Order: sequence, then C-alpha cells, then structure tokens
Amino acid sequence: MHRFKVGVLGATGAVGQKFVEILDAHPWFEIAVLAASERSAGRPYGEAANWIGSKPIPRTVADMQVVEATPGIDCDFVFSGLDASVAGQLEADFARAGYPVISNARNFRMQDDVPLLIPEINPDHTALIESQDWGSNGYIVTNPNCSTVGLTCALRPLMDAFGVELVQVVTMQALSGAGYPGVASLDALANVVPYIGGEEEKMSTEPQKLLGRLVDGRVEAASFQVSAQCNRVPVLDGHMECISVKFRGDVGVEDVRRAYLGFRSPIASYQLPSAPKKLFQVFEDPRFPQPRRHAEHGNGMVVSVGRIRPCEVLDVKFVALVHNTVRGAAGGAVLNAELLIEQGYLKHRKVDAAALA
Amino acid sequence: MHRFKVGVLGATGAVGQKFVEILDAHPWFEIAVLAASERSAGRPYGEAANWIGSKPIPRTVADMQVVEATPGIDCDFVFSGLDASVAGQLEADFARAGYPVISNARNFRMQDDVPLLIPEINPDHTALIESQDWGSNGYIVTNPNCSTVGLTCALRPLMDAFGVELVQVVTMQALSGAGYPGVASLDALANVVPYIGGEEEKMSTEPQKLLGRLVDGRVEAASFQVSAQCNRVPVLDGHMECISVKFRGDVGVEDVRRAYLGFRSPIASYQLPSAPKKLFQVFEDPRFPQPRRHAEHGNGMVVSVGRIRPCEVLDVKFVALVHNTVRGAAGGAVLNAELLIEQGYLKHRKVDAAALA
Amino acid sequence: MHRFKVGVLGATGAVGQKFVEILDAHPWFEIAVLAASERSAGRPYGEAANWIGSKPIPRTVADMQVVEATPGIDCDFVFSGLDASVAGQLEADFARAGYPVISNARNFRMQDDVPLLIPEINPDHTALIESQDWGSNGYIVTNPNCSTVGLTCALRPLMDAFGVELVQVVTMQALSGAGYPGVASLDALANVVPYIGGEEEKMSTEPQKLLGRLVDGRVEAASFQVSAQCNRVPVLDGHMECISVKFRGDVGVEDVRRAYLGFRSPIASYQLPSAPKKLFQVFEDPRFPQPRRHAEHGNGMVVSVGRIRPCEVLDVKFVALVHNTVRGAAGGAVLNAELLIEQGYLKHRKVDAAALA
Amino acid sequence: MHRFKVGVLGATGAVGQKFVEILDAHPWFEIAVLAASERSAGRPYGEAANWIGSKPIPRTVADMQVVEATPGIDCDFVFSGLDASVAGQLEADFARAGYPVISNARNFRMQDDVPLLIPEINPDHTALIESQDWGSNGYIVTNPNCSTVGLTCALRPLMDAFGVELVQVVTMQALSGAGYPGVASLDALANVVPYIGGEEEKMSTEPQKLLGRLVDGRVEAASFQVSAQCNRVPVLDGHMECISVKFRGDVGVEDVRRAYLGFRSPIASYQLPSAPKKLFQVFEDPRFPQPRRHAEHGNGMVVSVGRIRPCEVLDVKFVALVHNTVRGAAGGAVLNAELLIEQGYLKHRKVDAAALA
Repeated sequence: MHRFKVGVLGATGAVGQKFVEILDAHPWFEIAVLAASERSAGRPYGEAANWIGSKPIPRTVADMQVVEATPGIDCDFVFSGLDASVAGQLEADFARAGYPVISNARNFRMQDDVPLLIPEINPDHTALIESQDWGSNGYIVTNPNCSTVGLTCALRPLMDAFGVELVQVVTMQALSGAGYPGVASLDALANVVPYIGGEEEKMSTEPQKLLGRLVDGRVEAASFQVSAQCNRVPVLDGHMECISVKFRGDVGVEDVRRAYLGFRSPIASYQLPSAPKKLFQVFEDPRFPQPRRHAEHGNGMVVSVGRIRPCEVLDVKFVALVHNTVRGAAGGAVLNAELLIEQGYLKHRKVDAAALA
Repeated sequence: MHRFKVGVLGATGAVGQKFVEILDAHPWFEIAVLAASERSAGRPYGEAANWIGSKPIPRTVADMQVVEATPGIDCDFVFSGLDASVAGQLEADFARAGYPVISNARNFRMQDDVPLLIPEINPDHTALIESQDWGSNGYIVTNPNCSTVGLTCALRPLMDAFGVELVQVVTMQALSGAGYPGVASLDALANVVPYIGGEEEKMSTEPQKLLGRLVDGRVEAASFQVSAQCNRVPVLDGHMECISVKFRGDVGVEDVRRAYLGFRSPIASYQLPSAPKKLFQVFEDPRFPQPRRHAEHGNGMVVSVGRIRPCEVLDVKFVALVHNTVRGAAGGAVLNAELLIEQGYLKHRKVDAAALA
Repeated sequence: MHRFKVGVLGATGAVGQKFVEILDAHPWFEIAVLAASERSAGRPYGEAANWIGSKPIPRTVADMQVVEATPGIDCDFVFSGLDASVAGQLEADFARAGYPVISNARNFRMQDDVPLLIPEINPDHTALIESQDWGSNGYIVTNPNCSTVGLTCALRPLMDAFGVELVQVVTMQALSGAGYPGVASLDALANVVPYIGGEEEKMSTEPQKLLGRLVDGRVEAASFQVSAQCNRVPVLDGHMECISVKFRGDVGVEDVRRAYLGFRSPIASYQLPSAPKKLFQVFEDPRFPQPRRHAEHGNGMVVSVGRIRPCEVLDVKFVALVHNTVRGAAGGAVLNAELLIEQGYLKHRKVDAAALA
Repeated sequence: MHRFKVGVLGATGAVGQKFVEILDAHPWFEIAVLAASERSAGRPYGEAANWIGSKPIPRTVADMQVVEATPGIDCDFVFSGLDASVAGQLEADFARAGYPVISNARNFRMQDDVPLLIPEINPDHTALIESQDWGSNGYIVTNPNCSTVGLTCALRPLMDAFGVELVQVVTMQALSGAGYPGVASLDALANVVPYIGGEEEKMSTEPQKLLGRLVDGRVEAASFQVSAQCNRVPVLDGHMECISVKFRGDVGVEDVRRAYLGFRSPIASYQLPSAPKKLFQVFEDPRFPQPRRHAEHGNGMVVSVGRIRPCEVLDVKFVALVHNTVRGAAGGAVLNAELLIEQGYLKHRKVDAAALA
C-alpha cells in the first residue's frame, strides 16, 4: 500500500507528541508535516517540542522543521491534537480547505453532523460525514474524551446484551490527561484533586451519542443516564473507573462477565493495524487491573475490566481501566483514521499546490 | 481533674503509635503502660517501635519499657490498637479481667451488645455496655472502620433531615490505612489498587448499625443500602470518598448544604477535648477538599465535605474527606473514651494488684 | 512587649504564605499589611492566595485586603517573599523609603554591605547594616538560599573545630522549593530532575560569605571550595544533602559527631522564639534522617544530621536535612528579624503617614 | 542457530521475572525451566509469580510449571536471580553439577576466580573461568550490583583516556532495585531513605575489579578510590548517579565529553543481540537524563550521561543514569551469556539425564 502522508496539528503538545510516537511506527501512515503555533514554526521539532515520553523522540522527526498550522500544508489528511481554545477555528479552516480532519479536540464532538467515533463501538457513525458541508471535500471526525472512552467501551457489550438504564462512574485519572505542564506537582504528589473542569459533563453526554443508533442519517442518542465524579490522582498513565450499572432486565455478575468475554468487535474482520485482537481484557484477580501494571497492555489499546460483582444499589459494579493518551486520545484517533480508510472515506489527496500557494 | 492512667495495647504498631502521639498531649489521659507482643516486651518503646510519624516520638514515652499485652497491667482502662488477628482473644481477656477496652479493632464491632461508636453520631449507643457481661466490670467499646467513619458522619445530617434510602460510595484511601509496612511501594507509587480486603463489606454494614436507633436496649439498624467500591491510592493520610445519595423525599443541593452547615452535634455541650468545634467543614471551591491540604484540619477530627451537586442517577452527590488514622482510628477512639468519661462509664479503677499478681 | 506591625511583600506566593502561617502564631509580630502584585491588590487574602499549606489559612488574615506592594504601607518593617524578578527594584524602594527589609530573595545576598544571615551561624554580620546607605533609616538583611542553609549550618561546627578545606554536596530537594505552580507533575512524579537553575552557583558561593569573618566592618569570605550537584526529587518538604568534607587537619567520625553534639549556639542566651533549643539533631539509625519523617522536627527549624562515616576520598561524609520553606526560607527570615530586635536594629517605627501620602 | 535451552533460578522473584520478560523475546534463548523455592514448585508460573511488570506476563510461560531449583533440571545453562541468602549454596551446587551459572547474585562476585563481567567493559575477564574447578564442566559468571554498573560503565572511557584517581558518587536509586515487596510505601512515598544496606561497600570495591587488568590469568584490581553515598528515592526504574572524578592528568569538560562520544565498545564487532549500538547516550540539555524519561532508552541497556561540567573539588562532575533491573541486573546477565556464547564458553550441553536422576 502506498503510505498516506499525514499532517499533525498541535504537534508539539502532549497529545501531538503521542501522535508522533504512534505514527512513527505506523505501517500505513507517514508524517509529512508537523504543524504547531507560530511560536514553534521554523524550529526543528526536537527543539520545539519538550518531549515528555519515555521512549526516545523518533529520529525521523527530530530534525523536521515545524510549520505553522494553517491550511496549505501538503498531506492527505490531518490529525488534530490542537487545544480546544484554537481547535474550533483551525479545524473548521482545514475542513473548508478540503482536508479530512481526524480530531482529538472536544469542539465538534457533539455537533449533529460530526461523528464521535470509537471504531469497535459505532463504526457506522462515519456515515454522518456525508451530511457535512464545508464547501469542499473536507470533513471532521472526532474521538471522545479520554475518560468517556473507557466508560463507553465498557457499556457497549452490556447495552447490546441487556440494555442499560443507569450508570454511576467515579474516575481516578492520570496526570498525563492534563497535558504538559498540566497539574502542578504540589497539587499532584500524595494528593487527590476531586475536580477536573468539564470532565463530568463530557462523561454524562458523550456516551449517549456514541451508543446511539444511526437512523435516517442522524444519530438517535441512547437514553440512559450517567452520573460521573472525576478525580485526578498521582498516576502517570491510565484512567481507572469504578462503574456501577442498572440494566433494563435481570442481569447478574456472570452475565456481565460473559458479555465481555464474548464480545465480538464489529471491525474484527478489517484487520486494522491499531485494533487490539480483543477489545477487553478481563481480570479475575481482585487486585487488578491497575494503571501502572496494565495500562500499556495491548499497546495501550485494550480496555481492562475487573472486579465484576453485584452492586447493592444498582445491579452490577466493576472496574475499568483505559490508557488515556493512547486509546483515550492519539491511539483512538489513529484507529479512527484506519477505519475511515477501510470504509473508503480517506483517500490519497490530490493537492493543487499551485492553487494553494 | 485527676488524670486517667491508660494502657495502649498494640502500642508499637501504626495505630498504636498514633494513640501514643495523641495521648501524649492529652489533658485527661496519661500513658501508664505501653503493651505489645512478646517480641517487643522488655525493650524501650523508642527502640521497639519503628516510629513512622512526622512528629518526633514523645520524649516521655521513648524510654518507657514495653510490656507484654496481658491483663494485669496497671491502668484505668485500655486503648486497643491490636491487629484483628489477635484482638478477638486479647480484648475479651481484658474485658473479663475487668478492664474497659476502647478498641479500634474490627472484631467486636458488629456484636449486638458492643457499641460501635462515633460520639457526634450515636452517643446514646453506649447504653449497650450495660448488656455486656464479661463476669467483671470490664466491657468493650469500638469505633468503626476508617472509611466507614467518613461516610457515616456525612450521612448523619442527611438522614436526620431527609431520610436516606440508597448510598453509592467510591473511596480513594491513603496508604497509612494499611499500617506498616502495609502496601509495597511498587504497588503504591504512581498506581491505584482497586481492592482493599474486607473494606467494602465493612462500609456496607457498619453505617446501618451506627445510624440505627436504640430501642429497648438494642440497636435497630437503619435500613438504607450502601454500595462501596474501595481503592488504595498513593496518598499518605486522608481517605477521600465520592458519595451519591438517594433520599426518601425530594431533596436538592441547597438542602444538603444547609444540613451540613446547620448540623448541631449532640455532644457539643460536653466540651470534650478531642471534639472539633464543628464536625463539618464545607468547601465551595470545586477543587476541595484534598487529602494533602485538608486532612489535618481540626487536628484531623473534622470531616470535610465539598462539591455538593445534583446526581443524574440518585439525588445528590458530593465528596467527603476524613483523616483515616486520626478521626478514623486513634483519634476517634480517644474521643470515645472522653464521651465515656462524660457519661460516667469510665472511672478511675481500683486495681487490686495483689489479686492480679 | 508591644507587638511589631509587619508587612509581608509577595504575600500571596508560596514563600509569602509560609510567612503568613509562621507570623500568625508569633508572639512578637502582628501582620499589619499583606502586599502583593497589582493583580491581587484589593482582593481578600483568602481569595487572592491559592493557599497551598496543609494547615488552614489563619482566620485573622483570610479576610484582610491585599494591597499593592509599594512603600507607604503602615508597618514597622517588611518581610520580603518577593520573586527575584521584582525583588531587586522593590526591596531597594522600600529600603530607600526607610523600611527595614528582611528578605528571602536572592538579589542582595552577595552585595558587600548586605548581611547574609543565619542567626546561629553569623549573628555578628548584622553589623554590615551600618555601612548601608539608602538615604534613610532603611536597610536590607537577607537569608541564604534554602539548600545553602542546610549546608552552611552543617559546616559551622566543623569549621570552628577543625577548619574546612573542601566540600562536596549533592542535594535531593523538595518540590516546595520551586514554589507554586513550580515543577510540573509529569516532571516530578516518579522522577528525578538533575538540575535546578542557579542553585549550584548559590551553594558554591553563599557559604563562604556566611562563614566569613567580620573584619573592619566587612566580611572576609571563608576560603574553602564547594562543589554542588542539585537534584529535584518527588518530596513535598525537606532538602536532603549528601555532604563530604576534607578538613585542615586529621579529623575522624567521632570528632565530627562530637562537634555536632557539643555545638553551642552563639544566640542561645537570647531566647529568640523561633530558635530551636538545639540547632542540630543527630541520628544514629542509618536510615535517618528522612524528609517525610524529620523535616518538621523542631517546628522545621532544626537541622538533622546522620550517617556520619569516613569518606574514602575526602575525610568524613554524612547526610543533612533542612526544612526548605521554614528554616530555609520564611522561618529563617523570621528568626533573622528576632535577632535584629534583640540586637536593637529593629525598632517600632514612627511612620509619618502624611509625608508618605 | 539452534536455540539454547535455559533455566531461570529464582524465577518468581523480581529479578527472575525480568529474566523471563527479556528471555521470552530473545533470539538465541528459550526458557526450558522455571525454577524457584519449594513453596512455588508444582504451580503454574503465572500463579506462583506475582507478576509486577507493566508488560503482560508472556503467554508461553504463564502455564509452565515451576520446579524446585535443584541440579538435575534439563537445560544448557542457568541464569540465577536467586536471593543472596540462598545463592551461595545453590549456585555452587549447580556449578558442581556441571552447569554454567550466569548469576546476578552478589555471593561470588568478588571471588578471585569468578568473572565479574560487563561485556563492553571487561570482556576478557571471562578467562577467569578457566581457573575455576568445580569438579565438573560447570562455572560461575557474575554481573555487578545495579548501581555499580552505571558507575563502572561511566568510568571506563575516562580511565582508558586519562586515568582515574578519585571518584565521588551519590546515588538516587529506584524502588525496583529493592525487589518485591521491597520498600514499604510509607517509607517510599514523598520521601528519601539515605541508606541501602551493603550498597556503598559494593560500589567502593566492585569497580576496581571490573576495571582491573587481567595479568597471568588473574585480575589486578585498578587502584582508584571510590566514595559512595546511596539513597532510595520514589522512582520506579532507573538509578541516577551524581559522579565527580579526579583524573591522573589535566582533564577538562570537553575531554570527558569526547571520551563518551568516541567510546568504541570492544564487543562492537560481535553483534550481540542485547548490546546497544552505542553504550553511551550523552545529553546536552541540563535537565537530562531523568529516570522516568530515559531509563528505557536502548531497551534499558544504554547508559545515559549528562551535565558534564567542571568540579570545584575534584576535576569534572556529571550525572549518569542506568536502568537498574535491565542493564543493572537481568539484561546485563543475558548480555553476559551472549558474550560467553560468542567466546565459546557456553555450549549446548549434553545432559546425561540418567546420571543425574
């Protein structure tokens, strides 16, 4: 396969760096453009980015010159790791200029004609692309908030098998979710912060869109209620979620366990490079999953589930763990792009360089 | 007032050390005996105890010789910081030998004739002492599990004002709750362990006894349901609890806030030295409370409440913070003893040393 | 004694908050003015300061209105917790306006006529005040960098007893030393940063001034060499220092231990409220001192020493621990002010309010 | 190449687990036997080992049955991750029974006829094997203490180029170096422990043997002095070392940098699978190296060096970082085995099973 040339918007930030790390080893994609703010433009990426990962900055990108994130860059499509404060304007600009935008930002997630996408959960929602009209071939596809991803994946098999009515979730979220510099160490070390701005709202509304049905080209949101309480804890990577669910019928612990073990991904046959063999890893040891030990499993794309047990208030409670910067951000967006290619939405782009110049 | 001579059982352990720290500065009590296992007996306390606190070991006790924890020690009553593996036998032995035993261990908590006591919550439950029969003047009084304390205190004003039907609680508990050496650092650092053996069971059953009514000399347990999910997080002191409550009637956020602000402690008039002026500290800043910042407030005896807001699934949700080794353990037991003195249950004891010898 | 009215410059910052905490309970001082940048001016202190301490913000100051830090404020003298970026200008302005300035900032530390002061180490250096000429009664006195304090205190008894020739020091410094927000949590958690800007230079030059002799109204710097390597580690409070010393003569481990145990503070007879009974606490247990356990000892004003043993390269090596925000910053400055009062340099000030207006 | 069948002694412990992780992906080796104490024998490895790594336990070993660590197991040679308390006896037993023992334990390191080996540093020291006489074909080869490895690698180019006279080293060591459960979390979190039993002695004596010359079949220890101060810090993996060196001649910062950049590994031509392309990674950014960011570089086999600068007391100082459980333990031992194969010391073994039975 001829590799796709991709641009990364917001390439120097925390999410942008994760995009770079994942794309560097990707069989289908090739980083063609690293774009960031005017301040970084013109500098080598290795200098402009304060590389925070524990793997080395890929040699192939360290010397690439960062360009300003404006339409006109030469690539087949863009990944956006832009901050929400600028993503609204810039992503629209790119879409209008004809670029497919695979975004991790929150700005367009809840817009009716924009897919909010997790390939294993709602691959058919990409059909919304067809109702977008940017006056060009461009469009926007988004992935959910990092903590939403864990919850929504965990709900999918339960909803399919039993129907879900009520959901209580309390998160313990990693520091990397706040970007860099993010949380001050005096707030983080040996502490819990019981508040993450905007997070609970996202967790209460995004899952219903993700788990909604596509009817006549629109998403009919699923109708369950979610109550979320979000906490920041001193963990590097991996959001833990304590979840309790009330089902539409009579459902027990064994039913839930079987639902996870028996889950068939609707995209299993596509063989997408970033898709884990199994979406769920189910633990029997009551001490597991744990972020330090298990967040990296399945290259950070698996959702780990454990401690499935009866709930005295709703029906069943359990714990889920998701890698927030991989499955919950850059890795999820890359998988979205893979799905779009499989479905024919992403193609090599003929850029009329002259016209853009 | 003539000071009471107290013995501390399990004095070298983590809870025992907190007893020593609190008692050292106490106006009513004087440490007469430091008792521990045979292994520590005969050694100076400063040597036998691997002092883990951040305040210096009190000079007055550093050189005291540790004795074996067996009845016969010369004191008015004993505090027990014994491990559950030995507390069942030893506390019964002390009670039979005529000692009042103010215990932090779990062994007798749910026994019908043993008070499970938080002075601000159920001071009248001490009446159960009268139905105990150890063939002596001895008796046992217990305080609840550390995480139960935070939850139960938080529920009291709500139950009084509105009635409580369902409770969801997810805890993020400090490392000090596991004693010393407790949790291995490779399990604790930058990690969350979603399991604490026995903790969820305690949180699901102890609150109903604590909030039960005393009827004809017995406690009629309150009838609400509690679902608990308990996690260990890398925090030194202070258990955080995300709580969601369904009430018996129509109750809103402002009602709950007023219930905390207006709470009148039933023991306010007693002026007990360890009782905080106000049991509750209510935060409006959504980032608060936090364990590192607020666990020590009110000398660790205050319960902090914050983020009171509507719950999409039950009625109202909020966060509570309790200092697990003070209010949730040694400090709570000391306050229990103060209440027992005020109520006339604890008296200076005439020990017939000859008879015991 | 009539209490001194003090102003705190930079009151909302991390050091300023520590000043407020210490001064609130101080027998000689009364906070008259809380001064900060224009941005905070006019707001209640409790709102303007993002209080980071684990003790509650003192009630008496929470509602005080912050004023802009400019000469004209009504107080006997000022403590400066200003950031170095503004301290140079502002402290000079206050000195010119006639205020004694007791500063924690680095700007004037190495100026010839400014005392760099640790009361137990070089109390006579206050005589430098007399050579300052700000065209007013004002003057500036400084305390050293937080890590310098631990090292210099540790060297004083050794220099007095044996003479010091060479010093190697490697620090492991707490996060609170970087202020707030300071170090990003992704840099701090489970990590070591082997660099603290400017710190090694301060540690290599300040001790020689502190341990210098006052000759003809000037300080003759001591002549030993210091090599410092400074690291940031994930600790909340307390700087650890691994120190190795070469002496002028033949000195052994026992000599060093005796030097610490026998150290007589030159200000012992003054009974200053913030001075610890003994400057040094010497540990025999090889695991000690440790920041979490021992930094708070002596209200954070004691210097802890341990692991005294022979050095295979220089003569003797050992570990020292100092509380960086107390003895190493605000507490040290408060003790400086106490010394200045004792020596007659600080007096109640007649402010001609009209003239200043 | 026909793969070697290897046995892992102490397979369930922390070092044993790292052996298993590294060997699972190894091109030359195949885990034939997992041996541990009697207590674990007979259980599946996945159950017997409390797997602490962040990568999943390899599927191929999870179901292997653990056997007791006694001679008779069927393999070409053994890796020993045994605890020092049993390694002395057991490793000798295996050597006598004819097994090559590639050990990470400390017991035989300083024995005259046992190679203490880092392939890039002293590959010729394997010649010592020839003077071992266990009455069989067996022998023992050891790798150094984890913190010694970083120091010794860092010294090799300097010794070759300039000669080394004096070395000061202060370590900040990761928790994983203490095994599991190892350090209690209440000692580790937000703390520094300035003592690691036996560590300073190893760092003061092992480097001289490692850097010694082989003369007439014996190692003549190098003659420089090392003074070590060892600290435990709350880091997961990666030992940081602050090193200061006095050379035999006049040596500056640039000379040292060039020595690292120009270092040629004596085993470069062997193409051993675990050997990094370059032993040293040299950082110019003063904030680097850091354990969280850089310990995993080069699959944990690279030694990172940074902050090379003049020392005011000796000549030059700098920081080195080594992955303690990979390069400093299991990875180092695996590289030792690779070298022994290349040199012809390790061969496929004909085990006379009947004779052993």
